[in-house]
Amino acid sequence: MKNLLVAQSGGPTSAINATLCGVIERGMMDRKIEKIYGARNGILGIFSEKFVDLKHTVANAEALQLLCQTPSSALGSCRVKLPNWEENADDYEKIIAVFRKYHIGYFVYIGGNDSMDTVQKLSSYCKANHIEDIKIMGAPKTIDNDLEETDHCPGFGSAAKYIATTFSEIECDCNVYSIPAVTIVEVMGRDAGWLTASSALARYNGNGAPDLIYLPERDFDTEQFLKDLQQRLSQKSSVVVAVSEGIKNRQGDYVAEAVQYKQTDAFGHRILAGAGRFLETVVRREIGCKVRSVELNIMQRCACHIASAVDIYESRLLGSGAADRAINGFSGEMACIKRIQNPSGYEIKIDFVNIDKIANKVKKVPLHWITKEGNDVTKEFVEYALPLIQGEAPVNYKNGIPVHIRL
Amino acid sequence: MKNLLVAQSGGPTSAINATLCGVIERGMMDRKIEKIYGARNGILGIFSEKFVDLKHTVANAEALQLLCQTPSSALGSCRVKLPNWEENADDYEKIIAVFRKYHIGYFVYIGGNDSMDTVQKLSSYCKANHIEDIKIMGAPKTIDNDLEETDHCPGFGSAAKYIATTFSEIECDCNVYSIPAVTIVEVMGRDAGWLTASSALARYNGNGAPDLIYLPERDFDTEQFLKDLQQRLSQKSSVVVAVSEGIKNRQGDYVAEAVQYKQTDAFGHRILAGAGRFLETVVRREIGCKVRSVELNIMQRCACHIASAVDIYESRLLGSGAADRAINGFSGEMACIKRIQNPSGYEIKIDFVNIDKIANKVKKVPLHWITKEGNDVTKEFVEYALPLIQGEAPVNYKNGIPVHIRL
Repeated sequence: MKNLLVAQSGGPTSAINATLCGVIERGMMDRKIEKIYGARNGILGIFSEKFVDLKHTVANAEALQLLCQTPSSALGSCRVKLPNWEENADDYEKIIAVFRKYHIGYFVYIGGNDSMDTVQKLSSYCKANHIEDIKIMGAPKTIDNDLEETDHCPGFGSAAKYIATTFSEIECDCNVYSIPAVTIVEVMGRDAGWLTASSALARYNGNGAPDLIYLPERDFDTEQFLKDLQQRLSQKSSVVVAVSEGIKNRQGDYVAEAVQYKQTDAFGHRILAGAGRFLETVVRREIGCKVRSVELNIMQRCACHIASAVDIYESRLLGSGAADRAINGFSGEMACIKRIQNPSGYEIKIDFVNIDKIANKVKKVPLHWITKEGNDVTKEFVEYALPLIQGEAPVNYKNGIPVHIRL
Repeated sequence: MKNLLVAQSGGPTSAINATLCGVIERGMMDRKIEKIYGARNGILGIFSEKFVDLKHTVANAEALQLLCQTPSSALGSCRVKLPNWEENADDYEKIIAVFRKYHIGYFVYIGGNDSMDTVQKLSSYCKANHIEDIKIMGAPKTIDNDLEETDHCPGFGSAAKYIATTFSEIECDCNVYSIPAVTIVEVMGRDAGWLTASSALARYNGNGAPDLIYLPERDFDTEQFLKDLQQRLSQKSSVVVAVSEGIKNRQGDYVAEAVQYKQTDAFGHRILAGAGRFLETVVRREIGCKVRSVELNIMQRCACHIASAVDIYESRLLGSGAADRAINGFSGEMACIKRIQNPSGYEIKIDFVNIDKIANKVKKVPLHWITKEGNDVTKEFVEYALPLIQGEAPVNYKNGIPVHIRL
């Protein structure tokens, strides 16, 4: 009998708990698994031995459903980067000691780019030190959709559904006055424009917005932006613009005002805010029409009340898949989604990929999915993303608001 | 045979089209009504004779349902203030001439404070000039919930449901890290704190957030705010603050940074933005912990995908009630909601009130519904607001996003 450990890391998404749910379900159905532990605050909870007994805390179908409709990491998260074990193995020895103490045979780490770095380092440490009875698997998660080797990332579909819905609603909101007006909506995505691109899905039911879409994959030229805007304003009174928080000018500098703070997070990524706010100021000064900027901010990653049913389903599958793979003796891999070419509709299967291919890489929107003018996406992007926002994941309401579970 | 005219004005809400729907339904069932016209962009559409034939455009139950799930004013809106007719009657003569040309016997104007000013002036002009065959009625609408004489305003319940849901989700999002962090969420409400107060409904299912709530009804003291925050941070790592865009200091100046722009809208109201952003800067400087500000922005008034069923139902009733009242020969009134004292549950009836009691007045949150410390609301507010966010209004989705109607 061995125990299964699961932890969550990185920024919240609407689907990360569905993946946790999948891990628990897979553990529960296995007679070889005695306990399912959840570590609080990712890898930090391993160091501090802060474990939740998930077989008891999430004990029935109702609790599993509530878990799936609770946004963000129910076990808490962290942003911790392990040192290279070749240089300093202290953290690794500590982790393995805790694993031994709690009879952990399988560890599933759910997270994004930075979390896969931890999976990569920990599994390579185990391999180098001939620790073969502890299996370490990664399960992906990131609204940014920027992990390599997987067709798409769990959490992205729900964020994209929220973004497309919100652009559709914002268009209704902005269309009411007859005077010229520009609405600039800033969408998350530091280095990859997947989320900003999803705003295009708002048009699928015949909406006009967004009128212009700018991704970080292409250099942003303020002069060209003003020309694009003037051209649209000559055709209609309300123009809605989708802009990524991470757009950069030709010199590679972030357009965002906040770049002046030069703040960075624990991984050395710059903290961005304000591309939309900055462009609002530019439009007010250069065009002089009514202009507003809107940040979708953290709502785009936690609006679980409008999660994509496809996303929640796939996220759950990835969790159970990762746990299953570890239990079957594999280590140092990440569960991923492969899209199957099927002319009759959207179809996927869960696959596994060596973690070395994932860690510290960023998958960007292919340049040929961005229009020549650099201010929109092509139909190839829409065909790729549309299946991911289908269906409305079930939500239980109580007293008028969605019910969330606390672990 | 007479025709019925309806128009929408002021800022968008998630329920203003449900009121339009109510007007259309009442008109359709009346054999005395030949045509139902919708004027585009409020009163502007009357001057320019831009009318939509609503019996044809919204011809069946499906279209009426889509109308109810479409946010914002489907007929468009305006922000026009009529001059006093005693000083200049040109606009009034023009309006009456258009009414005569199109055989308008009944005019329902759906809107907020400023729109009721139009209803008041137009109906008093008619009265003074013995125009008795044109009946003018107001139907309320404002997310701000600041109209006098009505228990609450249609649109408020849906905005409150969005706000409570979003605070609940934001709490999940912000709770994931173990380091001290402050999240300041700025909510709409220039002069009245109803929307900001609704954030308290997020706690009804046992959530902790928001930890602090600041309304414009009480003077805002930055020093006291920092003390409140320090006190909460001594108890928990993640503190979520709800703050109204309209908070003012003891001198009566808006706390918002953007007050420096000194911009005003057509009614002379200052355009506000940035109370949250300003306080974020204060916290970063004075406390130095992780801090983020979030603006719920226009999403709070257009997130129709999470509209309150109670709100949509009542909004529809108010529209049909206002049209019915006009058809029955009344003029110069606004339809309103009276709450019936019923120990067994929430109950309302539609009533009508003289427009003079409404126009240009602002109903604020009663001071005794704010705690002594000025940083929260009392249970009386929660008892008042909770019934208004109940139920999820139906939404038809297509291609993964809600379907909206275009008139």
